[in-house]
Amino acid sequence: MSDSQPELAKEQGDSPSFELDTDQVDEIVDALDAADFAAVRKLCAPLHYADVADLLEWLSTADRLRLLDVLGDDLDHDSLAELDDNVRDEILEHWGLDNIVQAVTNLDSDDAVDFIEDLDEENKRKVLDAIPAEDRTFILESLKYPEDSAGRLMQRELVTVPEFWTVGKTIDFMRQSAEDAPDSLPEFFYDIYVVDPQHKPIGAVGLSSLLRTRRPVKITEVMWEQMLIVPITMDQEDVAYLFRQRDLVSAPVVDENGRLVGAITIDDIVDVIDDEHEEDMMLLAGVGEDDLYDAALDTTRSRFVWLAVNLLTAVLASAVISLFEATIEQIVALAVLMPIVASMGGNAGTQTLTVAVRGLATKELTATNATRVIMKELLVGSINGVLFAVIAGCVAWLWFDDIALGLVIALAMVVNMTIAGLAGTSIPILLERAGADPAIASSVFVTTVTDVVGFFAFLGLAALIML
Amino acid sequence: MSDSQPELAKEQGDSPSFELDTDQVDEIVDALDAADFAAVRKLCAPLHYADVADLLEWLSTADRLRLLDVLGDDLDHDSLAELDDNVRDEILEHWGLDNIVQAVTNLDSDDAVDFIEDLDEENKRKVLDAIPAEDRTFILESLKYPEDSAGRLMQRELVTVPEFWTVGKTIDFMRQSAEDAPDSLPEFFYDIYVVDPQHKPIGAVGLSSLLRTRRPVKITEVMWEQMLIVPITMDQEDVAYLFRQRDLVSAPVVDENGRLVGAITIDDIVDVIDDEHEEDMMLLAGVGEDDLYDAALDTTRSRFVWLAVNLLTAVLASAVISLFEATIEQIVALAVLMPIVASMGGNAGTQTLTVAVRGLATKELTATNATRVIMKELLVGSINGVLFAVIAGCVAWLWFDDIALGLVIALAMVVNMTIAGLAGTSIPILLERAGADPAIASSVFVTTVTDVVGFFAFLGLAALIML
Repeated sequence: MSDSQPELAKEQGDSPSFELDTDQVDEIVDALDAADFAAVRKLCAPLHYADVADLLEWLSTADRLRLLDVLGDDLDHDSLAELDDNVRDEILEHWGLDNIVQAVTNLDSDDAVDFIEDLDEENKRKVLDAIPAEDRTFILESLKYPEDSAGRLMQRELVTVPEFWTVGKTIDFMRQSAEDAPDSLPEFFYDIYVVDPQHKPIGAVGLSSLLRTRRPVKITEVMWEQMLIVPITMDQEDVAYLFRQRDLVSAPVVDENGRLVGAITIDDIVDVIDDEHEEDMMLLAGVGEDDLYDAALDTTRSRFVWLAVNLLTAVLASAVISLFEATIEQIVALAVLMPIVASMGGNAGTQTLTVAVRGLATKELTATNATRVIMKELLVGSINGVLFAVIAGCVAWLWFDDIALGLVIALAMVVNMTIAGLAGTSIPILLERAGADPAIASSVFVTTVTDVVGFFAFLGLAALIML
Repeated sequence: MSDSQPELAKEQGDSPSFELDTDQVDEIVDALDAADFAAVRKLCAPLHYADVADLLEWLSTADRLRLLDVLGDDLDHDSLAELDDNVRDEILEHWGLDNIVQAVTNLDSDDAVDFIEDLDEENKRKVLDAIPAEDRTFILESLKYPEDSAGRLMQRELVTVPEFWTVGKTIDFMRQSAEDAPDSLPEFFYDIYVVDPQHKPIGAVGLSSLLRTRRPVKITEVMWEQMLIVPITMDQEDVAYLFRQRDLVSAPVVDENGRLVGAITIDDIVDVIDDEHEEDMMLLAGVGEDDLYDAALDTTRSRFVWLAVNLLTAVLASAVISLFEATIEQIVALAVLMPIVASMGGNAGTQTLTVAVRGLATKELTATNATRVIMKELLVGSINGVLFAVIAGCVAWLWFDDIALGLVIALAMVVNMTIAGLAGTSIPILLERAGADPAIASSVFVTTVTDVVGFFAFLGLAALIML
């Protein structure tokens, strides 16, 4: 983005237009509907590629494909890198091979890999055969690494210098490269790397250090040796943790032999952080990651699984209730009140669970403080249990004019909310220790526990005390 | 971090030690317990400041304050900027004024503001009186802006050049500044800004562009004019959206008169993205943001509010059930099965709600596609409603050997799951239009709707069909 394009309007002023407004979108849709393609192209021309990506996402499938056809070669391929996977797949299916090849050739190496990995085997081969040999080699190389690894995230383009160079020589080299082989330099970079004769990284130099330093100074004098080096197979979630923990803007990536093969920059990491967030949130609710752009049938199918699990646990809770059919027949007020105990336990459990899942994801909940956190949640659960026991007990007593009923709901409340605190912390911790993602099944387990315990304690105590 | 500190070990190799392991923490705790302070200092010396922050967070309050006392002046103040708010507050309470003043003086301007804003008025004044005048002016200036605004996020240190300079002159200026007044340059920066005589920004130059360009070239020829300029009052959530949307690494901040006053860098934005995500997740579950490190009583209090709201809605659901006491008295199987309908509706509603809240937060769900998304959710809800109607209907029929009961639960299921799809999308959208955070109260509203509709449909249909 550092290339000067002074012909375009500046986005300045008190309220910068940093997102597409509804009016603009409506105008474009109207122009599409009216088949006024010149107007569509004119309206889209000043848009940033990220806004074009948003526009494509917001449109209906029919409008989306029409817009693509209208824009044709005017489409900035960088837009494709910003699209949601489902939307991109739709475009890939719609497009001919020519369009795909052109897009892959234009994109940065890491975005091109992202783009090509979703194609089926036949189309992948066809595209690879059609692109320049150099791009092909890199893409094939990247595709060898697991989908969520550093090898997929990294860019191959980087600036490396030998350890005996000076600051001046390094700057001259960059100026010469920019003139002789501009493609060898990354579009944006923040660090250059000092390598030994085996091409192993021995230090990093931030560009701001380089610019602060006089030309005759040796590069090894300004380099930062404590840099963190990312192995090419490292999981992207761990790489993101590293970037956050150390406030990094870029990091070098090495292959199995310790040789420097690429660099990861913060813009890719921000996307990873966003994806991980989305995953945590969606898993907790039992939803797939790309749900919003999924076709209705795909969404129905992916949510069905979680709902089926929920049905099983709901039947289990019903089975507990059916143990006490005779009791309910005699005191029908029990049927009226029993959802209260289960619901309060479920909510208290979900609160605790959310804190624990988030703590595990940010590595703030660890082996060191796990016992302390569980003890705290037990305490919080039992204090709130006692408070709500008093409130719910009084409500039940006054409502049904029956002090025994008030006592029963109060006791059941204390039991269930204390258990909720225990289950909400210990279940995700145990899942994590067992190697599972603590977000995925915790919620089912926790609400099953609070439903079963809630109904059993309330109805069981009623049978014991009131009959 | 670009300063050379070659005496420290490199973190390299196949599995870089990028986080504290449990053994190290145990060793430090043991040394603290044994009052072997020399050992504690030795164990902590090689740790990165972010790891020291983690360590402080994981320890119990007593150990935490002891560790602070043992480290004394050896504590890297950058650790303080990485701490959770509650932990930092604890340290502020424990520390004397001297320690606080020293920390504020050592921190970067934006971190110092973060640190000082939580002090009470008296201590704030004392600290401000004790620090250098220049720092004080900036901090007072920053504190004038709202807590979550760009004015709080920005760093005051930045590099600006007039429009008539060349690349060579710019580089010479930075070298000279680094020697004459090193504090005037930010520790790390990625862009320099070109300003007009009124100090209004007219373009940005990425350092990698600067280094690629020959010395005689005019700075205006390599500058990027399309840069986005952040008004100082802009909400940090909007700033974060900008950074993500445009893949920015830094952005200039201007005051009310359009004059350049600071810059925001990506490391601060990553923290904002994390905070906003935590907020969304926690609000959905009805938990406060810093819950994990809150004292048990504070946690109990903050969760109490949400649980009280939940109690109200649970009582509302019970009131619906009580309308049908006579029906339940005659057919006790209704009491056994009724939680199933409510639970399935609640889960389907939560799935939809989570997708909608996330879509609103990422601006993927907008006015353009809102109607389409609601229609899709209605479709998904009704298809899954029909599928689970068949399953639950068969279960109820076989369990109680009563085909009418199966029919009743099936019909109620279709109704409740369709309503869940509608409520799960339309409630957060309406909240957002009304100016509220869609995450905060959506969950109560949605489960109240599905509980009330679920119990009413199931028991009402039973009264209609079976009696």
